[in-house]
Formats: sequence, C-alpha cells, structure tokens
Amino acid sequence: MSQLKGSCIIGQSGGPTSVINASAQGVIQTALNCPDITRVYGAAHGIKGVLEDKLYDMNQEDPAELDLLQYTPSSALGSCRYKLADPDVDDTDYRRILEIFRKYDVRYFFYNGGNDSMDTCNKISKYMQKVGYDCRIMGVPKTIDNDLFGTDHCPGYASAAKYIATSCMEVWQDAHVYDTGMVTIIEIMGRHAGWLAGAAALATWAGFGPDLVYLPEVDFDMDRFLADVTAIYEKTGKCMVAVSEGIHYADGTFVSEAKTSATDGFGHAQLGGLAVMLAETVKQRTGAKVRGIELSLLQRCGAHLASLTDISEAYLAGKTAVEAAVSGVTDKMVAFECTREGGYVCKPKLIGLTEVANVEKKVPREWINAAGNGVEQPFIDYALPLIQGEPSLPREHSLPRFAKLKKVLAK
Amino acid sequence: MSQLKGSCIIGQSGGPTSVINASAQGVIQTALNCPDITRVYGAAHGIKGVLEDKLYDMNQEDPAELDLLQYTPSSALGSCRYKLADPDVDDTDYRRILEIFRKYDVRYFFYNGGNDSMDTCNKISKYMQKVGYDCRIMGVPKTIDNDLFGTDHCPGYASAAKYIATSCMEVWQDAHVYDTGMVTIIEIMGRHAGWLAGAAALATWAGFGPDLVYLPEVDFDMDRFLADVTAIYEKTGKCMVAVSEGIHYADGTFVSEAKTSATDGFGHAQLGGLAVMLAETVKQRTGAKVRGIELSLLQRCGAHLASLTDISEAYLAGKTAVEAAVSGVTDKMVAFECTREGGYVCKPKLIGLTEVANVEKKVPREWINAAGNGVEQPFIDYALPLIQGEPSLPREHSLPRFAKLKKVLAK
Repeated sequence: MSQLKGSCIIGQSGGPTSVINASAQGVIQTALNCPDITRVYGAAHGIKGVLEDKLYDMNQEDPAELDLLQYTPSSALGSCRYKLADPDVDDTDYRRILEIFRKYDVRYFFYNGGNDSMDTCNKISKYMQKVGYDCRIMGVPKTIDNDLFGTDHCPGYASAAKYIATSCMEVWQDAHVYDTGMVTIIEIMGRHAGWLAGAAALATWAGFGPDLVYLPEVDFDMDRFLADVTAIYEKTGKCMVAVSEGIHYADGTFVSEAKTSATDGFGHAQLGGLAVMLAETVKQRTGAKVRGIELSLLQRCGAHLASLTDISEAYLAGKTAVEAAVSGVTDKMVAFECTREGGYVCKPKLIGLTEVANVEKKVPREWINAAGNGVEQPFIDYALPLIQGEPSLPREHSLPRFAKLKKVLAK
Repeated sequence: MSQLKGSCIIGQSGGPTSVINASAQGVIQTALNCPDITRVYGAAHGIKGVLEDKLYDMNQEDPAELDLLQYTPSSALGSCRYKLADPDVDDTDYRRILEIFRKYDVRYFFYNGGNDSMDTCNKISKYMQKVGYDCRIMGVPKTIDNDLFGTDHCPGYASAAKYIATSCMEVWQDAHVYDTGMVTIIEIMGRHAGWLAGAAALATWAGFGPDLVYLPEVDFDMDRFLADVTAIYEKTGKCMVAVSEGIHYADGTFVSEAKTSATDGFGHAQLGGLAVMLAETVKQRTGAKVRGIELSLLQRCGAHLASLTDISEAYLAGKTAVEAAVSGVTDKMVAFECTREGGYVCKPKLIGLTEVANVEKKVPREWINAAGNGVEQPFIDYALPLIQGEPSLPREHSLPRFAKLKKVLAK
C-alpha cells in the first residue's frame, strides 16, 4: 500500500444531528495528528464549499474549541442539500472539484452524511479514479433516520432516539395529569424508515409512553387508526400515540401530504403538520380533547440529551475513516458491526460506497407487531444499548457551551 | 399561638410544571415528620379529589419513591382546572369540603398552584373562617408563567425558562446549518405575561438565540413584525424569532385567535398554531423558507433540563408552607424575596392569599426594549440566576426514573 501525502477536506452534508460534529472532531483531530496529512480543511456547507472554494483552515482552530465539537449539535462547518449531476451527463461540478483538489493538494476527502451524501461521495470517488487523480475518499455516516444500509446503526440515531424516548416519558406525565379525557399525538421524524418513531416505544418500555406507535413500514389505514385510538380512549380516558411523519396509505400517499407541498433539494416532500391533522381527526370522531405535538427540529439538535455511546461512536467513525484512508483504503464508508448478547459491543468496519449509496434500511417487519401499531421486544433490544450513557456537558451559566470556530478561510 | 393537631391534605391544581412535585414532596415529607400532623393525604386531582372523597394516604408511600418526586415532572397527585363558585351564590362545594375535612379531621390544607388555585385556596379559607372550622390553609405557588403577584418568581418558571433557552440555542445551531435563507419562529407558552418568551433571550445572551422576541406586554403589530423579520432576513439570510402564544393586537385580539376556538375550564382561550401561522405569513411576504416550532407541553414537563435552583426552591416552598401552618399561620401563600447584587439569595416569605388571588404580574415595560421586539439586560439579570444548577437525575437504562406512587385511597 502506497503512502500518500497531501491535505484533506472534511465536509458535512444533509440534515444535521446532535453528534455529527463528534464525527467531524474525530476526523479533524485524527487528521491534525497524522504526519501524512499536511493540512486539514473544513468545507463550508459540504460539497458546495468545495465548488465555491470556501474552505476553512482547521489548523488555525483553537484545540479547546475543537474539543467542544462533540457536544455541539448541528453541522459546525455548515451543511448542504446539493445533488451532483450524473458525471456522464454533466461533469462541470466534477471538473471544478478536481481543480480545487489540485489547488489545495487534497489527497483525502471525508464526507459526513447520510444516503444522499454517500451517493455524492461515491460519484466523486468514481470520477477521481476515472481521471486518475490519486485521492482517498471515505464516507463517515450520520443520520438520525438510521436508514443507512450495511451498518448496525448510524451515528446520530441514538441521540435522537434518546430525545424522543425521554420527551415521550415527560409528555406522558403531563398528558395524564387531569381526570378528563385526552388524546395526545406526537409526530416524529422519519420519511421512509420508522427507526425514530419506534424509539418512542422505549418510553413505553420504561413505564410511561405511547399506547400506539405507527411506523412507515406498515401501510396506514385511517379507519383502523381511529378504531385503535378510540378503543384505548374509551377504556382508559387517555390515549397517547406516536406517529412517524412518513406514514402513508397503501397507495404510497403520505398521510400528511395534503398539508404541505414544499420539497427539499433532492425532491423529497417536506412533511409536517401531521400530528395536528390526526389530532383534529380524532377529535371529530371521538369528541376527545386532543393535542398534537411535533418534535420538529428539537429531536435532531437536542444535544443536551445526547447518548454518550452515540457521541463516542460518532467520534470513532471519523477517526476510523482517517486511519483507514491513511493506511491506503478508499471508496468506503465506516460502518458498525455490533453484538448485543452478553453486553453491547460495537466495532467499526468498512463497506463499499456503491453498496451504501441510495439504499434505505427499514425496520424489519417482524420487529413491528402484527397490528402494525407498536414494536416488538427485538426493537427494544436493538435500540436500548445505543442510548446509554450521559455525557458531561460543558456549560456556562447552566446553558450549553457550544464550540465557537474561527472559520478562517484558506487561501 | 395555639397548637392544632389533625391531618393534612395536599392538592395540586392548574397546569403542571417540571418541579410542582418538588413542592409536593416538600409538603409531604415535612408533614410526615411533623408531630402535630396525624396523617398526610394527597387529593386526587386537586380540589376535585376532596369533593369526590378521593384522597391518597401518603403515609403508605415508599419514602424512596417520595424522594423521586423532585425529579418527576407534572402533578403526581393529578391536577384539575375546577373553579369554585362564589360561596355567597352557591355554597354546595364548600359544604362538601367541610364535610370531608371533618370526616378526615383535616386541620391543614396545602394547595399547590397558580393564580386560579390561590383564588380557590382563598375562598376555602374564608369559608372555613366564616363557619368557624379551625383549619390552616396555605398556598404553595407554582406556575411556569411566573405571573403570580407578590413573589420575586414562581417555582416552575425557572425550569421552563431553562428548557426554552437551551432549546432555542440548539435550534439556532440547526437553523443556521444551510447557506440558504431560513426564518424560524418558535412559539412559547404564556397567555398574558411574557416571562417565558423572554427566557428565549437568555439563549441570545449566551451567543445563539432569537434575533427577535415578542412578549404579550406590548401590543403586536403585524406590519412592524414583518418589517422587523424582513430587515434581519435580508441582511443575514436568517432570522430566528421567539413569540409568546399570548401576543395580541392593540384591540386585545390574540394573534392566534382565528386558529382555535377551544377554551379551558376557566374560560381562557386555548392558544396554539401561532408559530405556523406567523411562519406562513412571513413566507408569503418574503418568500423565505420558514419553519414554525411550537414548544408545546415539552417546555412545561422537560424535567431533564430542570434548574437545580428551581427544584430546591420548589421544595423549600412546600416545606415553608407546612412549617408556617404548624406554627399558627393561615391564609397565606409562600413567596420569595430575592437579592441578586453580590450573589443570588432567595428567602421565603408569606403573603396574604387575598393579595395574590387573581392578580397577574407582568414583565415590566422597561425590561422590554423600546421597539417591543426584545428584552433588556435587567430581564437577563433577573432570570439568569434562577436557571442555575443541574440536578443529578435518577435514571434507569439512561431514561428518567420517575416516582411511582402507590396511591392507596384513604378510607
């Protein structure tokens, strides 16, 4: 395996998470200590920063601030939702990326994101190979959605899951305070995979959580939903429901679709307003007092409830990517292989970017109950180890002390 | 001062908070250790539990579970929104309360709530005096709204304020991740007083928070609001706004009023949907990408972000109420007298229920900026000491371990 000396770029892409910066920290700190890596650049807003020649010189950052990245939610370098064209159709962006790579002698490129980002990573990797530019390209996974293929789980998922479970437990307490009827519907992120909505069941497992959980893996049926809710409401006077934003009817139409029409840069429908809509529907049917709560951005940036396991693994993913690249690996994403029997153990592994890109991993049907309104014990056994551990959060005046980067532009 | 021997009732009323159970714990544990108090009862769902003869025998609770109350959000005994009639018009409820007090030899009544609860407390106290039933009645304050008169602040406010400030800091990180335009509007509780919405400014003070904060103390003007937002958005490409649910036009109409028509038991309009409505209005005007986030119940039950100061003071309020009552005091609410110069000091004091009942304390106009879209430093100086300190939260499997009461009904 050949030694490759040059600078590196780390970019962050897609929706942020509570721990994506822990991965960035893993990349940056490992790269800064690596003799083969001459300079460490952070791309402003992911691949857009490369295209626009906006790179931050990470060597100029205060090490103490870099240490705070693991406790700072959202993408500290800035993110983007930018889809690269098919290079066979239009290679403009790729030629520009190559130009920038040459300008800064970039020999290592680390891209920190989800499905779409691994696709970006894969396309750049293939192009660089085609044009014979010697460069090692590694994907560092992140996504609260947990839908990346080929890995036990994704950094970012566990902290969002912990936020969701904890918030559901607290809302349960609040929603059960009066002796009058109440139906509470909590809307959770997750377009096509129900990993996040399923995490609400951790609250139920812990004693206080939703009676019903609806995942997008099972087609939604409004009549059955109303019957489910009504049965519990009539029996107990309360009903708490967790729904994934991505629940859809058998024909594929999102239940929330009528509510919004906006799409993001990848053409995904932007969902929202589902909880309120379902709550209103329940109200009309049952006459119950209802409340719709959307966890919205809070669930993906709630770093104060991050899982220490998640933070450590996110850092490990970044560190592993750099170490692997320097040792000669390219065109791979860091993934996790985990065992849970006899205590949770998580080990990093590497999988091909082509395998990962654009494939979505869903919750196995057998982990969802037959009625399609809750999860089974294997889901709990899967998710519970991931949310363990509380970080010692740096605070000032009892408020979070987030990293403050200088972001000096490279010349 | 005469010694009075007999049992006591603790009831909780109104909207729950993260620390109302710390006050209940303060009452219960102090009463359990008090020789003059023969038995400690918890009223199921506040005054309704008294009227319905549903009292829990707190002497039968596990002391270890009682210790967990301070970390358990919402009203563990159950709450209500029940308005007692004017006793001169209809004394049915009062005669029933007297009957129950006699049945259980109740000589101490502690009521844990906000404005309306202090009114309830006051009416019962006056009635008992009128009929010559020897009984000491004390109000224990709680309200996230912080609008109780005669006290520096209310237990419950600080923890909600800390939740709001922390969440705003996190959402700020998330809302600034893309290099595309974004207007984020966060809706915060508070019908008539802006203490909670003002707490969002703590986030700004800490470095990452809303650009604009609208409190109900200043009449809302939609045109000025849109001009405020547009000016910041055009300059920076982003704008983050915190609004109180209670913002209203000069004629008193709630800005959110068109959205809902439901009212609670006291005839208060139930507000909500404001953030989304304002976001849509901004979108129409500016074309910006917008997101409306309602903190909803999360802000009043987010015990995992409770202020240790708040927990301690809530407990102190309950303890002080019992100690004062046993020493001969009646017809008072526990309040706080605080100094902030040279370090924060908070001392309990007692004020007459008549003074407190149905008076709302608002944010002083001079603590709000002239433009009515932010708060001034005195607000920060007021609120910051209250949110200090992190409790050591009991957890099981990294999820909250809430108190589990047996709730054995008294016979």
